[in-house]
Amino acid sequence: MSPQAALARRCAAIRAQTEALAAGLSEADCQAQSMADASPVKWHLAHVTWFFETFVLEAHEPGFRPHHPAYRVLFNSYYQGVGERHPRPQRGLVTRPSLAEVLAWRQAVDARMQTLLAREGLPPACLERVELGLQHEQQHQELLLTDVLHLFSCNPLLPAYAEAETPAPRAARPEPVRWVAQTGGLVDIGHAGEGFAFDNEGPRHRVYLEPHALAHRLVNNEDWLGFIGDGGYRDARWWLSAGWDWVQGQGVQAPLHWRRADSAAAGWQQFTLRGLQPLHPAAPVVHVTFYEAEAYARWAAAQCGLPLRLPTEAEWEAAAAPLAAAAVAAGSFIEGGALQPQVVVPGDGGPALQQLFGEVWQWTRSAYLPYPGYRAWAGAVGEYNGKFMLDQTVLRGGSCATPRGHIRASYRNFFPAAARWQFTGLRLACEG
Amino acid sequence: MSPQAALARRCAAIRAQTEALAAGLSEADCQAQSMADASPVKWHLAHVTWFFETFVLEAHEPGFRPHHPAYRVLFNSYYQGVGERHPRPQRGLVTRPSLAEVLAWRQAVDARMQTLLAREGLPPACLERVELGLQHEQQHQELLLTDVLHLFSCNPLLPAYAEAETPAPRAARPEPVRWVAQTGGLVDIGHAGEGFAFDNEGPRHRVYLEPHALAHRLVNNEDWLGFIGDGGYRDARWWLSAGWDWVQGQGVQAPLHWRRADSAAAGWQQFTLRGLQPLHPAAPVVHVTFYEAEAYARWAAAQCGLPLRLPTEAEWEAAAAPLAAAAVAAGSFIEGGALQPQVVVPGDGGPALQQLFGEVWQWTRSAYLPYPGYRAWAGAVGEYNGKFMLDQTVLRGGSCATPRGHIRASYRNFFPAAARWQFTGLRLACEG
Amino acid sequence: MSPQAALARRCAAIRAQTEALAAGLSEADCQAQSMADASPVKWHLAHVTWFFETFVLEAHEPGFRPHHPAYRVLFNSYYQGVGERHPRPQRGLVTRPSLAEVLAWRQAVDARMQTLLAREGLPPACLERVELGLQHEQQHQELLLTDVLHLFSCNPLLPAYAEAETPAPRAARPEPVRWVAQTGGLVDIGHAGEGFAFDNEGPRHRVYLEPHALAHRLVNNEDWLGFIGDGGYRDARWWLSAGWDWVQGQGVQAPLHWRRADSAAAGWQQFTLRGLQPLHPAAPVVHVTFYEAEAYARWAAAQCGLPLRLPTEAEWEAAAAPLAAAAVAAGSFIEGGALQPQVVVPGDGGPALQQLFGEVWQWTRSAYLPYPGYRAWAGAVGEYNGKFMLDQTVLRGGSCATPRGHIRASYRNFFPAAARWQFTGLRLACEG
Amino acid sequence: MSPQAALARRCAAIRAQTEALAAGLSEADCQAQSMADASPVKWHLAHVTWFFETFVLEAHEPGFRPHHPAYRVLFNSYYQGVGERHPRPQRGLVTRPSLAEVLAWRQAVDARMQTLLAREGLPPACLERVELGLQHEQQHQELLLTDVLHLFSCNPLLPAYAEAETPAPRAARPEPVRWVAQTGGLVDIGHAGEGFAFDNEGPRHRVYLEPHALAHRLVNNEDWLGFIGDGGYRDARWWLSAGWDWVQGQGVQAPLHWRRADSAAAGWQQFTLRGLQPLHPAAPVVHVTFYEAEAYARWAAAQCGLPLRLPTEAEWEAAAAPLAAAAVAAGSFIEGGALQPQVVVPGDGGPALQQLFGEVWQWTRSAYLPYPGYRAWAGAVGEYNGKFMLDQTVLRGGSCATPRGHIRASYRNFFPAAARWQFTGLRLACEG
Repeated sequence: MSPQAALARRCAAIRAQTEALAAGLSEADCQAQSMADASPVKWHLAHVTWFFETFVLEAHEPGFRPHHPAYRVLFNSYYQGVGERHPRPQRGLVTRPSLAEVLAWRQAVDARMQTLLAREGLPPACLERVELGLQHEQQHQELLLTDVLHLFSCNPLLPAYAEAETPAPRAARPEPVRWVAQTGGLVDIGHAGEGFAFDNEGPRHRVYLEPHALAHRLVNNEDWLGFIGDGGYRDARWWLSAGWDWVQGQGVQAPLHWRRADSAAAGWQQFTLRGLQPLHPAAPVVHVTFYEAEAYARWAAAQCGLPLRLPTEAEWEAAAAPLAAAAVAAGSFIEGGALQPQVVVPGDGGPALQQLFGEVWQWTRSAYLPYPGYRAWAGAVGEYNGKFMLDQTVLRGGSCATPRGHIRASYRNFFPAAARWQFTGLRLACEG
Repeated sequence: MSPQAALARRCAAIRAQTEALAAGLSEADCQAQSMADASPVKWHLAHVTWFFETFVLEAHEPGFRPHHPAYRVLFNSYYQGVGERHPRPQRGLVTRPSLAEVLAWRQAVDARMQTLLAREGLPPACLERVELGLQHEQQHQELLLTDVLHLFSCNPLLPAYAEAETPAPRAARPEPVRWVAQTGGLVDIGHAGEGFAFDNEGPRHRVYLEPHALAHRLVNNEDWLGFIGDGGYRDARWWLSAGWDWVQGQGVQAPLHWRRADSAAAGWQQFTLRGLQPLHPAAPVVHVTFYEAEAYARWAAAQCGLPLRLPTEAEWEAAAAPLAAAAVAAGSFIEGGALQPQVVVPGDGGPALQQLFGEVWQWTRSAYLPYPGYRAWAGAVGEYNGKFMLDQTVLRGGSCATPRGHIRASYRNFFPAAARWQFTGLRLACEG
Repeated sequence: MSPQAALARRCAAIRAQTEALAAGLSEADCQAQSMADASPVKWHLAHVTWFFETFVLEAHEPGFRPHHPAYRVLFNSYYQGVGERHPRPQRGLVTRPSLAEVLAWRQAVDARMQTLLAREGLPPACLERVELGLQHEQQHQELLLTDVLHLFSCNPLLPAYAEAETPAPRAARPEPVRWVAQTGGLVDIGHAGEGFAFDNEGPRHRVYLEPHALAHRLVNNEDWLGFIGDGGYRDARWWLSAGWDWVQGQGVQAPLHWRRADSAAAGWQQFTLRGLQPLHPAAPVVHVTFYEAEAYARWAAAQCGLPLRLPTEAEWEAAAAPLAAAAVAAGSFIEGGALQPQVVVPGDGGPALQQLFGEVWQWTRSAYLPYPGYRAWAGAVGEYNGKFMLDQTVLRGGSCATPRGHIRASYRNFFPAAARWQFTGLRLACEG
Repeated sequence: MSPQAALARRCAAIRAQTEALAAGLSEADCQAQSMADASPVKWHLAHVTWFFETFVLEAHEPGFRPHHPAYRVLFNSYYQGVGERHPRPQRGLVTRPSLAEVLAWRQAVDARMQTLLAREGLPPACLERVELGLQHEQQHQELLLTDVLHLFSCNPLLPAYAEAETPAPRAARPEPVRWVAQTGGLVDIGHAGEGFAFDNEGPRHRVYLEPHALAHRLVNNEDWLGFIGDGGYRDARWWLSAGWDWVQGQGVQAPLHWRRADSAAAGWQQFTLRGLQPLHPAAPVVHVTFYEAEAYARWAAAQCGLPLRLPTEAEWEAAAAPLAAAAVAAGSFIEGGALQPQVVVPGDGGPALQQLFGEVWQWTRSAYLPYPGYRAWAGAVGEYNGKFMLDQTVLRGGSCATPRGHIRASYRNFFPAAARWQFTGLRLACEG
C-alpha cells in the first residue's frame, strides 16, 4: 500500500473513531458546554471537520466550495489568521446546525477527503496537512472525553459515559517507590527524523542535565491519601503562592472528581467515565493541578528528607526515549477502553521505569517555552502551538484517553497550572 | 360541567399547550441556556411539572411517591421552603434526564392529575393549588418563548422558531398620539372578588391620583427611530444615573434584537421568533429596558414641551380596568400565533385607549412594592412573589407571548430595570 | 439683619463647621478612601468648595476666574452637565493638591463668597444657589463622618475619631414598644411654603393612607440581639431574595461595626467614632441595611403574631410633621457631639412618638420615586436628585451625624438596600 | 574596619538612603496606594523596618520586645511563616500609625540595630540576616520609586517627584544595532563564591547554549515608534495569545506613561519622575510588558528577516558576567539621580555590548524557575523567592532605579508578563 493510500485508510479510521466515541451520547449530551475551557461534543465533531475543510480542502481540492459558508467562523477555534471566530464561552448555545447536520457534514468531508486522497500526485504539503488534521483530530478525541467527564460531573444524577467494568479491577497492593538513577550530562532532546511531530517538539537540541533519579512509578491514590491525611491541603508551607491562593479561594480538599462516600468509614469515591467508583489505592492519582503536584512533591520531600521534586521535561524525555517502544506498548490508552488510569500490578522484573506512557499526563517542572531555534509553522497553522508559549506547564507521556498512536517521547502537552479536568497526574524525581 | 371537571379540562389543555410550544424544537434547542436569567426549554417543561408534583400531588394524592427522587432538587427554581436547589446558571448542563424522559414525566403527572381531579370531595385548598399550577405554567409558556428567542439570537445562523408569515403584515402608517384625559381622585385598585389572582395583586385598596392623561397607543418603532436619530442613546440628559452607566458600559445603541441591515439604506431589521424581519414603523417598540423607557419619556417631554412621563401602575390600572373585557379581546396574545407585537391599523372610532392588553408589557414608573395590607401566601408558595419586592419595576398589560386567559387589569408583572429579553415596551402619560 | 446678611453669616458658620469636623485628622486620614462608595475627607472639603465655585461664583461673581482650572474636573462628583469628572474610585489617589492647598482654596472661596454676599441687589437665583450650597455642605458633613468611621474600621488599630465620653452613658433599661395609632385617610405630604427644600421633596401632594400604628421608639440593640439569638441571619424565611443572597454571599452575622468581644461572655462591642465601645442594649440599632431592616420586621411579626412591617415614607411624614418642632429639638444631631445614637431614657409623659428625628436614619418601605408632578431643577443642578430615582429606598428623620438645622419632616434621604455605612436604623409599623 | 563594623555602617547608610528617597513627599503622597500591585511609600518605610525587627532583632537582640505588637501583622507582606497579614489591597487605608510614627519606629530600630551590631561575637547567621535586610531594603527603594511614579500618573495634575533636569539631555542620534556574536557551548551560570546572593541565584550550574548573537544596545524609543507606526499594537500576528487578549482588553496603544502631546505634530511625551517630558528617540524604551517585548521581537524579526527573539537568561548572564565590573560602572543607577533611563551617546570604541546594567530591566525569554539543585532558605525567609517560581518571567540587569551596589550578573528579577509599572525594557538576540 502506498503511503498515500495508507494515509487515506488512517484518515477513515481516525475519523470513524471520533464518531464512535460520541455514539452513546444523546443530542443534549453533545450540546452542553460545562465551562469556558471545555467544548460541547458537537463542537468537537464539527471543529475537527472544519480543520480538514479549511486547511486541506480549501487549499488542495479542485473547485473547492465550503459545505456551509457560516461554518468557517462558527467552528474556528482560535486561528486569527483564518478570520473571525464565534466566542468560545458561547459554543454551547449553537443548537443549529443540529447534531445530525454536523454528522452529515462529517460524512461529506470524509467523502471529499477520500476523493482527494485518491488523486495522484498530491504535493507533500497536502499530505502533511492531512497528517496534521489527523493528529489534531486525535487530540480532540481526548478532549471530547475529558469534557464529557466534566459535563457529567456537573449533573447531580452523575450519569456514566460507559458501563462499569465487570468484574471490577482486582485488588493490588500499592508498591513502594524505587528510585532509578539517571546519569545526566549532555543529552539531546526534541524530535528529529521521520514521522510526524508538532512544531513545538523541535528542533532537536542539546541540554545539560545534572545527575538525578526518577521514581519507577507514578504517584498513586494511597500516596495522595497520605498527603491529605497529613493536612497537605491546609498547610501553606508546601504550596506555591499562586497555588495557595487557589486552594484557599476554591476551598479545595482533594483532586477533582473525588467525592466523600456517604459513610465516613467508606472513604473516598471517584467520579469516572464509568460512573462513581471506589477509589483504588494502587491506581495513579489523577485530575490534579500543577499546584497540587508541586505541593505534593514538597511535602513528600519533607516527609522523607530527600530532595524530591518534579522532573524537568528534559529529564523525563532523556529517560523515556530509549524505552519508548516497549513503554508505549505497556501503557493504557484510549484503545484499551479502560477510560481511567489502571491499577498497577507490582513489578515483576520488567523495565525499571514503569508507567512512562499512558495512564495520566505527567506534570513536569518545566515551563512551556520555545526550544532553541524554534520556528512556528508558516501560515495560520503557526498559531497551533507557538502563541501559547507563556505561563503554561509541560506535561509528558499521554493518558488513558490519548490514542496510542498519537504519543511520542518528544510529545509536549501543556496546560495552565490550575487545569485539572484532564487526566493529569505526576511522577517524582530526586536530585542527584 | 362541574367546576372541578372544568378545572381538569383546563389542566389538560394548558399542559398540552406548553408541549405544543416546544414541539418544533430539537433536543439541543431544548437543552441550551443562553444566560443565567434564562432557562432551557427542557427545564421549563420539567419545572412546571415539578410544581404540580410538589405543591399538588405531594399534598393531596393518596400514597404519593415522587416520580424520581432527585427531581425535587433538580427542578426547584427558588423555593427555599422546599429545600435545596440546583444552581440556576447550571440548568443548561443537566443533559439527563433526557427530553424524552421529561416528556414521559409530564405524561405521568398529567395522568395522576386527572386521576386526582376525578376524585370527589377534593378540598378547596387542593383546587386552588391546581389553579396556581396552571397560572404558573402559563407564565412559563411566555418565558419559554422569550428564552428561545434569546437563545436563537446568540446563534450567528439566526434560526427562526416559526416560519415567517405570508403574506407579510400590510403596511400601516403610524398614527400620532392622542391624549386621553383621566380625572384622577380616589380610586380603588387591586384584585377583589371571584377568580384567580396572585397574592401580590391584593388587597384591593384606595389610592389618590392627580389628574393626568394617557397616550391612546403604545410608543412605536417610528417614535423610537426619532429618539435614536436625535442621539438619544448618547445624551446623558435623558438617562437615570444607573441607566447611563448601563448604556455606556454595554455600548447600547438600539433595542435588543435590532440589527442594522447590510446596506445602510435598508435601515434596521429585527430578529423575531419568525427570524430576521424588516422593522415596521407602526409596530410597538419592544425589547427595551426600563432605563430606555424612562430615557425615552424624558426625551419626548423635552421634544414637545409637555410634562410627559411613564404612567404609574395605579394610573394604568384605573384606566384599564373598566375597559378590560373588550381591550383583552382586542389584543395580540399567544393564542393568536403572531409571536410579535402587531402593526396597528389606525383607530376608527373604537375605544380611546388602545393596545391596553397584549402586544408588549408596558413599563410603569412604579416600583414593585407590597400593597397596603399585603400578606404573602402561607407556606413555601409564599415565596412566589413576596420575596422579590425590592428594586424591580412593575409592568402591566401582558404581551403577544402571554396567554389571553392569563391576563387581568390587576396583574402585576415585574422585572429589574436592565431586563429586556421579555416583550417589554411602553406607553406615555402626561401630567395634568 | 437682612436675609442676605443672615445668609452670609450662615455661610461662614457652616463652612467653618466643616473644617472643625476635619480638624483632628491628619493629612493621611484626610487622604484615604476606604471604598468606592466613600470619599476622602480632603475630597469632601474640596468638592463642597467646588460646588460654590461652580454653581455660585461662576454664575454670579463679576470677573470670575477659577482658583485652579483643573479643579473643575477633579472635584466634580457626578454632574454630567458640568463636564468631565475624575473617576470616583480614584479619589484617594489625588495626593496633590495637598490638604493645605485645599484649605487655602476654601479660604479663598470663603472670602469671595463674603465679598459677593456683601453686594447689593443679588438676584434671588443667586441667593437660592448659596442656600443650596450650604445644604449641600451640610450633607457632606454627615458623609465626612460616616466615611471616616468606615476608614478607621478598616484599620486593625481601630483608631478613634474622638475621645470616649466620660463618664460613659449611664445604664438605662430598654423600654417595651408602645403602638401609637394613626388614623390614616387622605393626607398631604411633601414640602410647601417657606424655607429651603430639595426638589425631590415636592410638590406637596395628597396621599391616601390606611389606618395603622407606629412604634413609639426605634428598634434597639436589645431587640436586635433577640433577632440574632433566634438565628435571624441564618433563616431564609425572613429575607427578601436579594437580601438572602447578600447575607449568604457576605457571611453577615451582625450589623456593620459590631465586633465580638474577646471573651464570649463579654458579648458584643461596637466600633464608633469614639473607638470600640460596649454595645448598649437601650441604644438604637445602627448600621443596618434595608435588607436587615426588612428581615427584622418580618421576624418580629412572626414572633408576636402582629402584622408588623416598616412604615411607608408617607406614613412616617404624616405622623412626624405635626410633632416636628419639638421632636427635632429632642433628637441627637451633630451639634450635640455625641457622634453615636443615644441611649434612650424611658419616657416620662413626653410625646407618644419618640426618636422621630436624629439618632439614626429610619429605613422606610418606600422606593425613592418622583412625587406626582415632580420637576427636577433646571440646569446641571437638576442632576442633584432626579437621576437617582430608581432602585433606592427612602430613609427619614436624620441621624446623630446630621446637622440639626438641615432636617425637615419632608426630607427624603435615599440609599441602595445594601448600604450600611451610614447611621441607618429602623422603626416598626403595624397595620391597622 | 571589621566586616561587622562595615556592615553597621552600610546599615546606617542604606536606611538613610531610603528615607532620603521619601524626603520630598508629603504625608498624603506617602499614604496612597494606586493599585493592589503597588504599596504606599509609608508602607515601604514600615515594612523594611518590620523585616529587621522580625528577622534580625526578634532572633538576636537580648530581651527583645516589639516596638508595637500590632505591627507584626500590619507590615508583614507575604510571610505565612510569620503569621497573619493585613490584606495587601488595603495597605493604603492604614492612616495610623502616622508617617511620623513610622519614621520614629525607623529611628528606634536603627538605634537598636547599631547597638546589636556593636556587640562582639554575633553569630554569622545574624550577620547574614542583616545583610539580607539591607538587600531587601534596597529592593524596596526601587519599588518605592516605581510606586510613586504610578501613583502620580493617576493624578490628572501629573505632579513631578523631582524637578526636571537643567539643561535637558542633549540630543543624540539613535545608533543602529550591532550584533555581537556569542559562541555558546557549555557555560556555568548562577552565583558562586563570596558575596551576597539570593537563594534563587544558585546553585551555580552548567547550561548548554547554542551559538547566537546579542544586540549591542537596548531597544530604544525610535525603534518602538517604528513598531507603533507599523500597526504593531493592532496586528495579532506578533502577539502571544495572552498578550493579544491583554492588548485588546485594555486597548493598549503604547508603553505605560506615554501620552500623546496636545498637538499631533508634537508627537509623544513621557510621564516620568521628573514630570512630563519629551520622548527622546535615543533613550531606551521603558515600561513595557513582557507581552509587548515578545511582540516587538517577533515584529522585528519579520521586518529584517533575521531570527530575532529575546535572549534567555543564561545567554544574558553568560555574556554579561565577564563584563560586569565595567558595565555596572557605566550604567545609570539610582545613585546617579537621573531617575529615568538615559539617552545613549553613540559608542566610541567601548565594549561591544553596551547598556548591560542599569537603565532598564531587560525581559528575557526565560520563565522564573528553580535552578537545578535549588534549595530555598530555611525558615520563613524561604518564602522570599521560592514560592513565586511559577508563571513569571525573568528580567536581568537592573534599572535606573536600582541601587548600583545591589546588582550582579547573576541577579534574577521576576514579574508577571502583564507588569509594566517597573522600569522594564528589552534587548534583542539573534539565533546563530
